[in-house]
Amino acid sequence: MNYFSSDFKLGILGGGQLGKMLLNETRKFDIYTCVLDANNEAPCKIGSHEFHLGSLMDFETVYQFGKQVDVLTIEIENVNVDALDKLEKEGVKVYPSSDTLRIIQNKATQKLFYIDHNLPTAPFSRFAYKSEIKDTIENGGLKFPFVWKATQFGYDGTGVKVVRSLDDLELLPKGECIAEELIPFKKELSVIVARNIKGEIKTFPVVEMEFHPEANQVEYVICPARIDSEIAKKAEHIALKTSDALKHVGLLAVELFLTQSDDIIINEVAPRPHNSGHQTIEANYTSQFEQHIRAILNLPFGSTASKVGGIMVNLVGEEGHEGNVVYEHIEEIMNMEGVTPHIYGKKKTRPFRKMGHVTIVHEDINEARIIAEKVKNTIKVISK
Amino acid sequence: MNYFSSDFKLGILGGGQLGKMLLNETRKFDIYTCVLDANNEAPCKIGSHEFHLGSLMDFETVYQFGKQVDVLTIEIENVNVDALDKLEKEGVKVYPSSDTLRIIQNKATQKLFYIDHNLPTAPFSRFAYKSEIKDTIENGGLKFPFVWKATQFGYDGTGVKVVRSLDDLELLPKGECIAEELIPFKKELSVIVARNIKGEIKTFPVVEMEFHPEANQVEYVICPARIDSEIAKKAEHIALKTSDALKHVGLLAVELFLTQSDDIIINEVAPRPHNSGHQTIEANYTSQFEQHIRAILNLPFGSTASKVGGIMVNLVGEEGHEGNVVYEHIEEIMNMEGVTPHIYGKKKTRPFRKMGHVTIVHEDINEARIIAEKVKNTIKVISK
Repeated sequence: MNYFSSDFKLGILGGGQLGKMLLNETRKFDIYTCVLDANNEAPCKIGSHEFHLGSLMDFETVYQFGKQVDVLTIEIENVNVDALDKLEKEGVKVYPSSDTLRIIQNKATQKLFYIDHNLPTAPFSRFAYKSEIKDTIENGGLKFPFVWKATQFGYDGTGVKVVRSLDDLELLPKGECIAEELIPFKKELSVIVARNIKGEIKTFPVVEMEFHPEANQVEYVICPARIDSEIAKKAEHIALKTSDALKHVGLLAVELFLTQSDDIIINEVAPRPHNSGHQTIEANYTSQFEQHIRAILNLPFGSTASKVGGIMVNLVGEEGHEGNVVYEHIEEIMNMEGVTPHIYGKKKTRPFRKMGHVTIVHEDINEARIIAEKVKNTIKVISK
Repeated sequence: MNYFSSDFKLGILGGGQLGKMLLNETRKFDIYTCVLDANNEAPCKIGSHEFHLGSLMDFETVYQFGKQVDVLTIEIENVNVDALDKLEKEGVKVYPSSDTLRIIQNKATQKLFYIDHNLPTAPFSRFAYKSEIKDTIENGGLKFPFVWKATQFGYDGTGVKVVRSLDDLELLPKGECIAEELIPFKKELSVIVARNIKGEIKTFPVVEMEFHPEANQVEYVICPARIDSEIAKKAEHIALKTSDALKHVGLLAVELFLTQSDDIIINEVAPRPHNSGHQTIEANYTSQFEQHIRAILNLPFGSTASKVGGIMVNLVGEEGHEGNVVYEHIEEIMNMEGVTPHIYGKKKTRPFRKMGHVTIVHEDINEARIIAEKVKNTIKVISK
């Protein structure tokens, strides 16, 4: 197939920031793109050839959209998988596949998959209703603290909470969930694996994630991770094993815990470009977004090596601010060495909403970390 | 002014490949853009917020377009300067200014400007009509070989020709032109200078250009140039002097000759992103396109240092091919280390038409040069 002509159409389910960064790559290669999103102000309205308005969860909408394209990909997991299933049967190439998405969409199914495939992950229990958790605690089957995770529709740190008391439990939404043992990890790591149609694989360097303690959102992604090469190898090995078990096509971001005893266990995975790979745009020979496009179009992979050290800082809405967004002090951070802001183009901010990110690149990763902290303390995403 | 909101509008005159690469940066910063171009299939139709169809040379079209934006820039010099003049008087910020464009648009005026400002350039004569050249030759006032340049509307290597005989002269178009002494240079170099509204300046590293002997088009841009640091300093000095004389805002690409006696003289300049800076997208901390946006919005400059060595190879239409474009063997070059193709999205190819470029990055510039030659010999822009 000649991807570099308008005879070919790539469909993207979801028009948010990940889609927007994918479109930068499709523009570079002049690939014709169609985007489906329910929000008429989605960032991908600009940069795509066709923007279709509609629900990603509606069978008929996703099916009809998918019928018009040659290859279909996602930038968000919460899409109608039955429609993808039907599209696959009718010859549309869907990456990641409906099978992969079914496993990953539901966190309980995802955890059971790890166990079935002998992949290390924290012990957990599955609950059809939140009320069952309380019964289990009373029967001595579960102890505080534990990590509660909604099985579906979590995003940007919602749907995950550390539960330390019955009061914490009260505040959580109802519905299917899992309770996971709280792992007192040393570090959180991530490895992004690209896998193409032929089954060829390529990993990005292991990164380290520093989290905001309350919002459960990544504050800094640091590449390369400041860990021993032995641990990096272990992390890569687990990521590759996960990739091999899932047989995904496209990217798979594997989030990992480094335990106190230097073991690596899987936290969760995402079958798409991921927050832990944003710094690859400036810091690596090939960005995660370009690699995803190369994978799903069965093009050769680019080198994933780092040109320089890279740190990503998420730009999230300040607490106490809701409304039309202003990026206060953005000019100050643009005056710092090796700093590039990415503004996603969402019109309204709210506390902890992901509004953009900033990349800091430097030959010395420790220098980059110092600048990253300055960036974090300078720019504020507020409303006015 | 808050550039990162939809209250602000940036206008771009011209919707070609340079505009397209500018739009990648405006998308990153979420800057609202309006583009004017006469071609309804221009690359900038995708990626801009508003695409306006109309002639860049028509006073009324350019004026009406300019009235709708806050800052107006160009991606091609051939625009109606009188309209820009009027827009400036009415408060629209135009960068580069109409004054700068008037000097640069006409190559005779440009040459006279160098002489007035004591900037080194090759000796030349100006002719209102081509017929005058013949008379001058017959009177002994001009000798073969010399370089003929049309004073206006040259692009992509058209409008420049080495003239070695009366037969060569016959083949040239009529109209105003200059005849320049043919300089037997060692190398062609280029320095891109960014200058903002406050007069702050920043230069990109000196690059070396290897030209196609017939088409007079750049085949390879090599960064850093393989020259002594003393010569690099001399080149930078001349570029900065030119920038200072022109007082441009935005980028100024200064093309230079390194003579046999190691002198640096100016060939010509362009007040915009330039073919000799394309490799900055992958190879430098800040790309020329981002720097242009930073300059015209009076934002702080980014670092222009190289992360790695970079080479740019132009993708031009093969001789003997005219029609719907096909990029033959593009997958082979994407399999080479550090190689990124940029496809401009022009539907039709013709001999020597610029259809895209390829960047090759590598820590060792000599390794990059070897890969660049492989790229050049592999990919073919043909029609089918």
